[in-house]
Amino acid sequence: MNVTVNGRTQHYRTVTFDSVTNAVRLIEQRLLPHQFKVVTTSDFRATARAIRDMVVRGAPAIASTAAYGLAQGALAFRGNDLRRFAKHSESVFAALKAARPTAVDPVNAMMQVRAAMQAGQSVAERQQLALAAAEEFASQSVEECQAIGRRGAKLVREGTRVLTHCNAGWVACVDVGTATAPLYEAQARGRNFHVFCDETRPRSQGATLTAWELSQQKISHEIIADSAAGRLFQRGEIDLVIVGSDRTLGRTGEVANKIGTYTKAVLARRHGVPFYVTIPLSTIDWSLRSGRDIPIEERDENEVLGAWGVAGNGTREYVRVANPSSRARNPGFDVTPAELVTGIITPLGIFRPEELWTHRSKLRAK
Amino acid sequence: MNVTVNGRTQHYRTVTFDSVTNAVRLIEQRLLPHQFKVVTTSDFRATARAIRDMVVRGAPAIASTAAYGLAQGALAFRGNDLRRFAKHSESVFAALKAARPTAVDPVNAMMQVRAAMQAGQSVAERQQLALAAAEEFASQSVEECQAIGRRGAKLVREGTRVLTHCNAGWVACVDVGTATAPLYEAQARGRNFHVFCDETRPRSQGATLTAWELSQQKISHEIIADSAAGRLFQRGEIDLVIVGSDRTLGRTGEVANKIGTYTKAVLARRHGVPFYVTIPLSTIDWSLRSGRDIPIEERDENEVLGAWGVAGNGTREYVRVANPSSRARNPGFDVTPAELVTGIITPLGIFRPEELWTHRSKLRAK
Repeated sequence: MNVTVNGRTQHYRTVTFDSVTNAVRLIEQRLLPHQFKVVTTSDFRATARAIRDMVVRGAPAIASTAAYGLAQGALAFRGNDLRRFAKHSESVFAALKAARPTAVDPVNAMMQVRAAMQAGQSVAERQQLALAAAEEFASQSVEECQAIGRRGAKLVREGTRVLTHCNAGWVACVDVGTATAPLYEAQARGRNFHVFCDETRPRSQGATLTAWELSQQKISHEIIADSAAGRLFQRGEIDLVIVGSDRTLGRTGEVANKIGTYTKAVLARRHGVPFYVTIPLSTIDWSLRSGRDIPIEERDENEVLGAWGVAGNGTREYVRVANPSSRARNPGFDVTPAELVTGIITPLGIFRPEELWTHRSKLRAK
Repeated sequence: MNVTVNGRTQHYRTVTFDSVTNAVRLIEQRLLPHQFKVVTTSDFRATARAIRDMVVRGAPAIASTAAYGLAQGALAFRGNDLRRFAKHSESVFAALKAARPTAVDPVNAMMQVRAAMQAGQSVAERQQLALAAAEEFASQSVEECQAIGRRGAKLVREGTRVLTHCNAGWVACVDVGTATAPLYEAQARGRNFHVFCDETRPRSQGATLTAWELSQQKISHEIIADSAAGRLFQRGEIDLVIVGSDRTLGRTGEVANKIGTYTKAVLARRHGVPFYVTIPLSTIDWSLRSGRDIPIEERDENEVLGAWGVAGNGTREYVRVANPSSRARNPGFDVTPAELVTGIITPLGIFRPEELWTHRSKLRAK
């Protein structure tokens, strides 16, 4: 998407590859929204560190970063020995996989790159095939988001007031985003609308990343405390809820997403407001039989007990808000039952949650 | 309640009066929970400033502070001229009233003190009557909270897991608190239970004040992000919700309280968990006919856009969390409809919300 820095507007992707210098270029997300900076990782180890240290985050974004990282590592190999090249490539794969050991998307992305490489007869050929496969993976990831945008844009009409939770935006993807895709497409179609961004405690991705994205695209928006949505629903000030998802069950239509999503779904139902979930196909879990089986990570309590921000002197600081001797519970995600979900916006169309299973042969990601 | 500072435990009230030095003693609430300190205001102007600057906050606490402040001002008068004394007392009244111009409780409290003074035949007599009336007001305020505790304690059984929102605790009152009163009484009866404190963004009174109170009383508790309650309800980890109220309508049973209260009531209903509201009688508004008529203040957006806490170097700081160019909406309160309220715990008993009007002659505050 376009980003304006010091009055200069330019198109960026969250992750790109520079084949001249064999470098991965990443938006340094830990500095957002207070500073916009693109960083370069000049070898696969640096790329793995960037994934590990969350310079880049969001499942689609780290998947493409890992795909590029594998190509980057392959391209750095010198020589013609195919066996040594294969061994080297496996160590690159392992290093990138270890950067976020519980994430499945980077592994799936790298498996696509590795499979494509096999067709090459020489090291040079395999290197070029790896790069082409990584580029293809990133492009398909963007196309999926664009398709979600086209499918969902009809929901965002002139004057629609949208509530969103957390960040499922373009900085979590390669470009366009998932929950933001229908917004950007509606804007491209010339519509004016307003977005309420839940701040999304404890990590405040709504107040930081989503608000930053929307302000960059000049989309009318306001941040609210997570607790304030209820009053806006009561006053009839919300017409539509759109959120992303970390995992959606193909068998039941249950939606795991950032903590607080379930509460918004309950409020939306009470007030007769449609509640939509946007997902790339890779987010659908076809194996689990119940939302109760989705592992929900309990995160560091310090996220709840304080906040990160910029102090008066301009430095980024963590402040302890809570009573010093108290502890916190910090579940990272919750699961929204299918009955509260109006529709699931996929690149292939909008489905009722129970229809995912009916259309499973079409929806299973390649 | 008892407060332990540097290993020494002592009983405190939020506000007390020292008749020897003619001074009001207040817990400096702006330093809580990071520092416990009692400050002294040595004349009525300093007492008014303490109210204005929110050294003391919470309707019952500022009501008693104003009552003491009026007595303090009266006692400072030198001479026997009743007319000059009356004029002086009126200026004290006006100064204290102006400290929080929209609050009604301090005015009601001072009117009680002023009425009591009239019975005196001399300046000295009126001064003593003023002090006695202020002490009486504060004591009745504590007794009301204690009565709420006795009425509500039966709800807090051995092992009950309670959710509370914001702070309706003893530091918002003279002592004991309202939403906390059933907890403290249940503890006094020897029961063990657990309290989840909503952090209560944007001002975090749950993470700061309620958590501090509960840790001082050694009541098992954990802080949660406001958004996390939904997941705890889903998992059956909450048995009871108890909140305070800023204004409850006697005609309809609608409850105005801190933003986010409504959301908790909606979740409680969905999960079949009882939702109780604790109120002193002065909180009942007998005139308004609809919750829609309750004015809801829109507060400073910077509350939502950042957070106050203690930085690594130990200083209290505000950090800007949100995207710098984004704005926020910040409604301070919401209104929970009577149908979501299981019961209203008053000093005179627990009532269904629609029963307030039936029992209005009994419940109208003196």
